[in-house]
Amino acid sequence: MRIVVVKRVLGDNERRAARLRQRFAAGRCLAVNLLGSPGAGKTALLERLIPMLRRRRLSVAVIEGDIATTRDAERIEKAGAPAVQVTTRGVCHLDAAMVGAALRKLGRLPDVLFIENVGNLVCPAAFALGESERLVVLSVPEGDDKPDKYPAAFAGASAVVINKLDLAAYCKFNKARAVLAARSVNPALAVFETSCADGFGLRELAEWLLARRASALALRRPAASTGSFRDVAP
Amino acid sequence: MRIVVVKRVLGDNERRAARLRQRFAAGRCLAVNLLGSPGAGKTALLERLIPMLRRRRLSVAVIEGDIATTRDAERIEKAGAPAVQVTTRGVCHLDAAMVGAALRKLGRLPDVLFIENVGNLVCPAAFALGESERLVVLSVPEGDDKPDKYPAAFAGASAVVINKLDLAAYCKFNKARAVLAARSVNPALAVFETSCADGFGLRELAEWLLARRASALALRRPAASTGSFRDVAP
Repeated sequence: MRIVVVKRVLGDNERRAARLRQRFAAGRCLAVNLLGSPGAGKTALLERLIPMLRRRRLSVAVIEGDIATTRDAERIEKAGAPAVQVTTRGVCHLDAAMVGAALRKLGRLPDVLFIENVGNLVCPAAFALGESERLVVLSVPEGDDKPDKYPAAFAGASAVVINKLDLAAYCKFNKARAVLAARSVNPALAVFETSCADGFGLRELAEWLLARRASALALRRPAASTGSFRDVAP
Repeated sequence: MRIVVVKRVLGDNERRAARLRQRFAAGRCLAVNLLGSPGAGKTALLERLIPMLRRRRLSVAVIEGDIATTRDAERIEKAGAPAVQVTTRGVCHLDAAMVGAALRKLGRLPDVLFIENVGNLVCPAAFALGESERLVVLSVPEGDDKPDKYPAAFAGASAVVINKLDLAAYCKFNKARAVLAARSVNPALAVFETSCADGFGLRELAEWLLARRASALALRRPAASTGSFRDVAP
């Protein structure tokens, strides 16, 4: 009985996510689902990326998923992007219905929409949000064994961002081992290395997002198409 | 319908946890449920605590919860304690039924049983495992705002262990703010500060565990009692 209900919940979510995917494609919006453990640095990455993307004349908005508090949305607005806070009140992940409700509050779709998921390397991996790209943020102090231990988060991602590289000198973190483990569950994974403390690697990540958006727009069939970016991009 | 099933699942778990609690009390076993984000340092803490407790002539065993891999159980056995690995295959938390099954593999109850939960600051908080003490591990690089953002994990704990204190010089972490936030959801919370890199603070944590066990045994009614340690300890 429990399994039947879980299947129904996931099936409902898939249908809602497919509708969001169509909507993002029609609105020429690159939607990026950001996953990672609590404290991996997801909000800090956005604080750095938002001004870089805005300087490239792209509009950016953020949906902030948190169990409690609206602190992250406040940080995002200071960084220069509108933010809609989704407070899940105990729920361990965002789902497509929550994103749909947040979009109604947001109004117009931006060029780039970041969806910062609840800090959790497990449950969010099971819930599609209609995203074009899924980034999993792995911070150096968490350890290089995390892709082995939490494979689903890495299997479903388009890129891993190895963050807090400034702490590498003080932690036992073997980058080659982490990348090998992540690629063993997902050979197509793009890899970025960043530090929000000193800005290292952020330009490369921003350029990759721009390239993903450009290639999706170039290859995409007319706006009425139902294809997601990922369906048609190389 | 979904809510009804979730309630039933949690109700079943409460009943199983109550039976485990009786069993731990009858067996004079201090059961410690260890919660924390991926990479907070839960296994490293156990690697340090096991030899300290064994030198005090206590038997120690560990139930290791992981989504995938048996790596943590191997680390624990090297540290000198028997370990039973529970591989949840995607499930985001341990529940009382999983702990019951692991106990059957373990055989005799030890003086101190550590149950290392899946790395997740959200879902494990909802599932009692019959434990006498619940420790939540918060590592310095995760940030001092985590008790505000993940309140349930802190509300249900008996102690918070602020770990990776050796990284405090390289992270923006305001300890007073973290403690204030944690105690605002749980005024009775004990606070420890540790570093597994240099051993700082581990003796205090081990002494606290010994004291909790001693006071539970001293105050406990005869072995047939149904009270948990926490029910009768001050």
